[in-house]
Amino acid sequence: MPDTPDTAALSDDQIAAQHDLLGLIGCGQLFAFETLAKDCALSKTMTPKAELGQLACQEFAGFQAVSARLSAVGADPETVIGAYVPTLTEFHRKTAPRDLLEGLMKVYVGDGISADFAREIANYVDLETQEFIREVLGNRDQTEFVVPYIQQSLREDPGSAGRLALWGRRLMGEALAQAQRVAADRPDLARLVVGSPAAGGAGLVEFAQMLARLTEAHSERMQRLGLAP
Amino acid sequence: MPDTPDTAALSDDQIAAQHDLLGLIGCGQLFAFETLAKDCALSKTMTPKAELGQLACQEFAGFQAVSARLSAVGADPETVIGAYVPTLTEFHRKTAPRDLLEGLMKVYVGDGISADFAREIANYVDLETQEFIREVLGNRDQTEFVVPYIQQSLREDPGSAGRLALWGRRLMGEALAQAQRVAADRPDLARLVVGSPAAGGAGLVEFAQMLARLTEAHSERMQRLGLAP
Repeated sequence: MPDTPDTAALSDDQIAAQHDLLGLIGCGQLFAFETLAKDCALSKTMTPKAELGQLACQEFAGFQAVSARLSAVGADPETVIGAYVPTLTEFHRKTAPRDLLEGLMKVYVGDGISADFAREIANYVDLETQEFIREVLGNRDQTEFVVPYIQQSLREDPGSAGRLALWGRRLMGEALAQAQRVAADRPDLARLVVGSPAAGGAGLVEFAQMLARLTEAHSERMQRLGLAP
Repeated sequence: MPDTPDTAALSDDQIAAQHDLLGLIGCGQLFAFETLAKDCALSKTMTPKAELGQLACQEFAGFQAVSARLSAVGADPETVIGAYVPTLTEFHRKTAPRDLLEGLMKVYVGDGISADFAREIANYVDLETQEFIREVLGNRDQTEFVVPYIQQSLREDPGSAGRLALWGRRLMGEALAQAQRVAADRPDLARLVVGSPAAGGAGLVEFAQMLARLTEAHSERMQRLGLAP
């Protein structure tokens, strides 16, 4: 586990990285709101329509909380969150679901990946921000409601398992590609996570372990759905 | 003003009408959530993106409150609210905005019309339901944030005034057409409002006055935007 920096004694780089991480999470929640609302509109039955709408609004409340937090720490939410719009637009463009089933899988698998990512990176920021992030990400069960829908769809049409397994791999692949892009664009954030152990960063060994944990969690989600990871 | 029926002494027709009205409002809010979230996604700048998202979530909270209310009065929210899906799908299909500006006008003008409608009809149901409806519809200022955007767009492109004035008339026209369809499909609700004065309904004179008030409020909104009603 990394050393947790003290909130009162953050370097400029650490503050920049803290803002970057909050911006990424806030922007992710705003986009999650928009895509969940789209899935909600796609759903022709009141369930899962109502659950999708509720989750969308939880994501939006998270975005608002992150905006307020950024203002409270002296950053401009519009700039910091807005900086991630191109990255997330690209991610969602490349992972636009073709139907409600793919949309629901993106809710479960995509939300899982991005929340895991954010929780892992939160280990490297100060304790106050860590606690805030854990709270704003909500609990891991909030997307559980889609599991029975996907499982039932697979029972009704077992032939779709191949397509969905591929879709899950694509979601993970695109998430990693965008994470790499973010790391390239945000040296402070990248240094925070993969920097030299002397600088409080993870070092490559710990970074590799983090990637292994993310991949493992993704495989577990795919298996829960009855799909090959 | 109509006689307000006592909650404890409602006839079966009045209860059916009460459920119908709640269902219409709840379904309207669910669709408002979906279209506002779509407008939010269309907006490329953080404002009005954030305001549109917030309003969307307010509408969704309203839908949830109506669902809970219907359950509390012994009705099945899924059936009662779901019954209006075809009407509202038709309304939104016929009034799909072509760009963000038309979307924002629909937020201000369309939301205004439907809230006015619901408040007028609420005059004919029991006091408890009336109070609930007034609360769930929120205040009249919640869509005010779009007014400066539309006014500025008109300053930048005065030539679009004709198109937007036509768009406003179309929104009102489609709202009236759908209201007529609802009245035809829901005799209890229609009787409640336009029934004979003996039955506690408005009678045609009062109904005409109600339509005049709705049209007047619509004209005022259009004039505030700088558009011919």
